Amino acid sequence: MTSVGIDAIEIHTGKLKLDLAETFAPAMDDAPEKYTKGLGLHASSFPDTYEDIVTMGANAAHRLMERKELEPDDIGRIDVATESAFDHSKPVSTYIAGCLEQVFEGDFHHANKGERKFACVAGTQSIDDAYNWIRAGRNRGRAAIVVATDTALYARDDPGESTQGAGAVAMLIDEDPDLVELSKAQGFGSADETDFLKPQQQFPSVDGKRSVNVYLARMREAMIDYQRVGGDIHPDDFRLGPFHTPFPGMVRKAAVLAYRHIIRDTDIEDALADDIGRQPRPEGFDDEEQYREALSEYTDALKETDRYQEWYDRTINPTLSISRQVGNWYTGSVHVARVSGLKALAEAGEDAVGDQLLVGSYGSGAQAEIHVETIQDGWEAELDALNIDEQLDSRYDLDFEEYEDVHDAHNYDEETAVEEFTAPDSEFVFDGWGRMGERQYRYVD
Amino acid sequence: MTSVGIDAIEIHTGKLKLDLAETFAPAMDDAPEKYTKGLGLHASSFPDTYEDIVTMGANAAHRLMERKELEPDDIGRIDVATESAFDHSKPVSTYIAGCLEQVFEGDFHHANKGERKFACVAGTQSIDDAYNWIRAGRNRGRAAIVVATDTALYARDDPGESTQGAGAVAMLIDEDPDLVELSKAQGFGSADETDFLKPQQQFPSVDGKRSVNVYLARMREAMIDYQRVGGDIHPDDFRLGPFHTPFPGMVRKAAVLAYRHIIRDTDIEDALADDIGRQPRPEGFDDEEQYREALSEYTDALKETDRYQEWYDRTINPTLSISRQVGNWYTGSVHVARVSGLKALAEAGEDAVGDQLLVGSYGSGAQAEIHVETIQDGWEAELDALNIDEQLDSRYDLDFEEYEDVHDAHNYDEETAVEEFTAPDSEFVFDGWGRMGERQYRYVD
Repeated sequence: MTSVGIDAIEIHTGKLKLDLAETFAPAMDDAPEKYTKGLGLHASSFPDTYEDIVTMGANAAHRLMERKELEPDDIGRIDVATESAFDHSKPVSTYIAGCLEQVFEGDFHHANKGERKFACVAGTQSIDDAYNWIRAGRNRGRAAIVVATDTALYARDDPGESTQGAGAVAMLIDEDPDLVELSKAQGFGSADETDFLKPQQQFPSVDGKRSVNVYLARMREAMIDYQRVGGDIHPDDFRLGPFHTPFPGMVRKAAVLAYRHIIRDTDIEDALADDIGRQPRPEGFDDEEQYREALSEYTDALKETDRYQEWYDRTINPTLSISRQVGNWYTGSVHVARVSGLKALAEAGEDAVGDQLLVGSYGSGAQAEIHVETIQDGWEAELDALNIDEQLDSRYDLDFEEYEDVHDAHNYDEETAVEEFTAPDSEFVFDGWGRMGERQYRYVD
Repeated sequence: MTSVGIDAIEIHTGKLKLDLAETFAPAMDDAPEKYTKGLGLHASSFPDTYEDIVTMGANAAHRLMERKELEPDDIGRIDVATESAFDHSKPVSTYIAGCLEQVFEGDFHHANKGERKFACVAGTQSIDDAYNWIRAGRNRGRAAIVVATDTALYARDDPGESTQGAGAVAMLIDEDPDLVELSKAQGFGSADETDFLKPQQQFPSVDGKRSVNVYLARMREAMIDYQRVGGDIHPDDFRLGPFHTPFPGMVRKAAVLAYRHIIRDTDIEDALADDIGRQPRPEGFDDEEQYREALSEYTDALKETDRYQEWYDRTINPTLSISRQVGNWYTGSVHVARVSGLKALAEAGEDAVGDQLLVGSYGSGAQAEIHVETIQDGWEAELDALNIDEQLDSRYDLDFEEYEDVHDAHNYDEETAVEEFTAPDSEFVFDGWGRMGERQYRYVD
């Protein structure tokens, strides 16, 4: 059976930067460490006034197609995942296809376009759909473009304000992929939860504490579900563990719980037993509370072991580097984590072909998905081709007043006339509204 | 290869009715024929005050699961297609799963839930995703539930006001289906169009004339694309042609163009040549305008032939009966047309096993999809089990003032305290807002 997976990835960051330590913390009268240590975040990306989910997605997809020398006829499917849509009926994928048709000969008139919504997990769901479409033999030799694009803004002074971000990830899903093969096995953990909502509103209402608990509970369910079809998971089987990263501190919290779960009944639990004992099992306790307490103590001890620390530094930490510089991109977040981790391997010159990734996607509301990816022969060339470092370095560094203006400029309820901070160059830009209230776009050479 | 398709369908209509001839036309000072003849519509369905896209979808899915004796563990996927979503992040499928978990033992914690948006075509896209998921071998023996649910309201006094409607269609996608098998072959016609939008607004902005032209252009592209993989389409190959039905008059218009397209170079074109000549071909004309005119004359003549009229009465007309009574259900519309056509065959006592359906789905913005379905052994029992006639007959018949109140009650920008018109009975109802602005639901015995 031919392999199916991610053939190429491109990332487009919003072109503005808010420095959390230098700019946000002083304005909030906070110590910088609240953000850099507590959340693990140093900066957020923001869209310039001429950027939005369409331009960011189209720019990433454009670069992807150019780099892989693709024509519109090579693409049979364009799916966009977002929770920042600005129209209740017309999907963002049609706008992105319209942009691309401005710069390519030919058109996407026979490509199936769509839009998926499920908080931050819809990007992975769209990859799954594309994988299934190819496996079902309906692709006629063509590939799918999946774009995860979001402007993750919170209301001013909301506790989430420091975790904002904006950017897009475009991925090419194809047979015989150059980057990673996707596992057929998947695990889901999913429940009707009220942790993060946008009921008829642009900015989210968040129950922060519940959101963390729901993330952990759904991930655990997804892990168990994955094991039913994918077999046992051993931590040493995976070179990287890219997880959905609302902020790196969340993943730090989740990682030790995931580790605890997957070392149960393995040689690792045995090896650690002399130091920190064996994991508490519910059957060893008379009441639930005692059990939870013991589990919590074990987890604290586990976190301090060299074995865990080494695993975390090797498997999880490399996936967080880009996130620290850009904040939360919602649907793009787990895909940024994958790139971040692979980039570290490439920079270290590792021979990673055949190595596996344990990928944990998550969306509030709530659903987690676990699947496995295997690094393919062409991975290094794919990583070399990324220009994310240049993009991050060239972001315009906002002062606080400018940040306030940019936030207003992207707030649908504010009327503003904020000037752009950067000059567009070889990219799609927002070009005003049409007669039916539609957003219009053009390519700037 | 095992067959994959629609195993069962349930329809839930909004429980209120606006009679277009008796109630709407007099209030608008119009002749009833404007609606009954021009649009081909007699009435619209509306949701009562305790109904919305979640309750209608959950009620349809509940009946589906009960009738097919399914438990939550039998379901691996719940996808909702809608363009009436009330949250920008949390998908409607989680609310529907939450409702169902109130009445079933067990839960859907390992089912992949999602939401698709692309105007009226997303229901069919969700069926495609479910089909691909099964064909990719990822379903672990489980079936998918696809729910197409919408409250298709227009602003008061908008030209679209007479085409409103509200209802949900729940479909079970499974191996060895009882109702219809889906073709692997699909055709798409898709372009970035500005014909129907809801930019940050509940009610649509519509360019009516453009919308009709775009519908026809995309359908034509999809038909051509289908023929590349599915082979030639001959009108006599299909027992029924269920098409997206914004109003029956639209399908009447589209049907003759589709017929003209598919009889080209067939025995039918030959047989009709004595009467109305052969179809004009572009190469026979010096300029485009002359060609278009000749084509238009041919189409008018074609429409009057007995051969076409018989085909229309046999293949298209039966698919429009329910639509005439309920209006436009957006994502549910083409699925209502399928049921309507099959219901006519069942009522006529036809032996239709093995007969084929040419299904034309469409969403503004814009995309058409053509695929073929084959009627399966269990189809009659499935049709017998429907209670749509009872539902239609028991709708509460609104007077005009009540209609105005109901429209306000479902308008997010109006504060109202409209009393319900009907009494809920064995169904899910909207039960007010929670502390985070989430909509809450309960089951009324």
